[in-house]
Amino acid sequence: MKLSPLAEQAAEVYKSIQTHICSALESFEPTARFRNDEWQRTDSKGGTGGGGLTRILSGGEVFEKAGVNFSAVHGTMPGSFAAKLGGPLEDVPFFATGVSLVIHPYSPMVPTTHANWRYLELGERAWFGGGSDLTPYYLFEEDAQHFHSVLKGVCDQHNPSYYPRFKKGCDEYFYLPHRKETRGIGGIFYDYLGRDEKIDLDATLQFSKDLGFAFTEQYLPIVARRKDTPYTEKEKNFQLLRRGRYVEFNLLYDRGTHFGLQTGGRIESILMSLPAVVHWEYCPTVEPGSPEEQLINTLMNPQDWV
Amino acid sequence: MKLSPLAEQAAEVYKSIQTHICSALESFEPTARFRNDEWQRTDSKGGTGGGGLTRILSGGEVFEKAGVNFSAVHGTMPGSFAAKLGGPLEDVPFFATGVSLVIHPYSPMVPTTHANWRYLELGERAWFGGGSDLTPYYLFEEDAQHFHSVLKGVCDQHNPSYYPRFKKGCDEYFYLPHRKETRGIGGIFYDYLGRDEKIDLDATLQFSKDLGFAFTEQYLPIVARRKDTPYTEKEKNFQLLRRGRYVEFNLLYDRGTHFGLQTGGRIESILMSLPAVVHWEYCPTVEPGSPEEQLINTLMNPQDWV
Repeated sequence: MKLSPLAEQAAEVYKSIQTHICSALESFEPTARFRNDEWQRTDSKGGTGGGGLTRILSGGEVFEKAGVNFSAVHGTMPGSFAAKLGGPLEDVPFFATGVSLVIHPYSPMVPTTHANWRYLELGERAWFGGGSDLTPYYLFEEDAQHFHSVLKGVCDQHNPSYYPRFKKGCDEYFYLPHRKETRGIGGIFYDYLGRDEKIDLDATLQFSKDLGFAFTEQYLPIVARRKDTPYTEKEKNFQLLRRGRYVEFNLLYDRGTHFGLQTGGRIESILMSLPAVVHWEYCPTVEPGSPEEQLINTLMNPQDWV
Repeated sequence: MKLSPLAEQAAEVYKSIQTHICSALESFEPTARFRNDEWQRTDSKGGTGGGGLTRILSGGEVFEKAGVNFSAVHGTMPGSFAAKLGGPLEDVPFFATGVSLVIHPYSPMVPTTHANWRYLELGERAWFGGGSDLTPYYLFEEDAQHFHSVLKGVCDQHNPSYYPRFKKGCDEYFYLPHRKETRGIGGIFYDYLGRDEKIDLDATLQFSKDLGFAFTEQYLPIVARRKDTPYTEKEKNFQLLRRGRYVEFNLLYDRGTHFGLQTGGRIESILMSLPAVVHWEYCPTVEPGSPEEQLINTLMNPQDWV
């Protein structure tokens, strides 16, 4: 398949973001390194359909499980899926590229994070999507403020309406209705950027690139600050229970997970988002006024962090 | 709400099944006992809507987490849900009662099991549903044969077509398409029994009752046989990974879980089905010819056990 110039550039950008982030994460690890799995995709019509590079670091000193996936896939999208994405109800050629990451540290003092930046072409239409968000187990307000202020800085350079719009989008998307909680303290989430509104797609790729390269600055200072904070068994156990909520969100509600599983994506690359160790307990309780209760209250009432 | 005679009888039957099963499970535990939580439901119209009794045993010597829930709820079902169940696309009075259980033992040598028997009235229609199934981590053929042969015995007493039909229904329902595996080695699963085919509903309640009271005979001899079998850390770890598949099924595909969460059921009673401790690992492998590989092969190719 002959790619559009923008498609080629986007794939290059996302690949370089993957390399940049993996190197930065490895710098926290004395010995653990990313394992690299290249994979090829077979299109539904049987032809080649692109592929990807899944990079997973397991059992580090700081990071229990970190996955950073790059992919660039193309082929024919069945009309039933195309229609859901605003395309026509007929088979359409598509191209999709992006990088997607989930980082689960061991320590309950270090938050989990997720990010994704992607570009999609569907028939005649093209758009960008993505975002990043933070899921702390113990809430340090300065961490939430730092994460959001880096995001706001990048957004404001491109369009002052982006941060407030996409911050709200994130709180709405990463929401567990059955728990009446957000998944974490948010970040930004955007989709269909450039599909329905007239914007410069080259500038939007640059937005994606700026966000991707700012990610390490957003997250790693928090890791550096919290990784040596001592914690108790009770705090570790609270993290394991909260990870259950992470799994509930990803399996019950996440559109990306459902889309990937239904379109025959690479299972192990999709489900690398799930934490290594998770607990569920019947009717867990938290003490009134405790940090655990404070976290839950915050997740039930999304806040402005900058 | 005035209940129909069959509704009242069904609720009594399911309550007695709950008592019977909980006592039998406790007989395996020197000290652990079921915790009993009675709850009331508020109907969507704000009135009383019945309630239930959730019974959970945690941290036993044999059973890490066992939940046996009884409920009898009624009210008005929104048309959007009623239509999915074959009712009209308008608000309809409904009544539902049943008992539902999930048992997760500690030992990887003792299988997990799930069962449910229920009765539903929706407007003018009424039907039964339910079944039970077994999820071993290490496969002992005699256990699978025992579980299925007790089931077949009960089915055959009522209708010789039941076991083959419902055994197939179970293999089809408890299936993870993304893994191309069944959840376990099956059992029986039936739904809408009496809704579309003319059968004696009293006899069908008796079928439900016979199944419910046969459950301990189906499962507990397996527990007795395997509970003291020694196991290695590697075998324990395989169980924790396989439990991940259990969670994937329940959150991605189980209609009962989705229905409960969407209709505002009691979250902790619904999600008691999730194991206490679960692991996910990126690209786990099994040795060729190992018992782990044998189990996976069996789950990919459902078998006849009797």
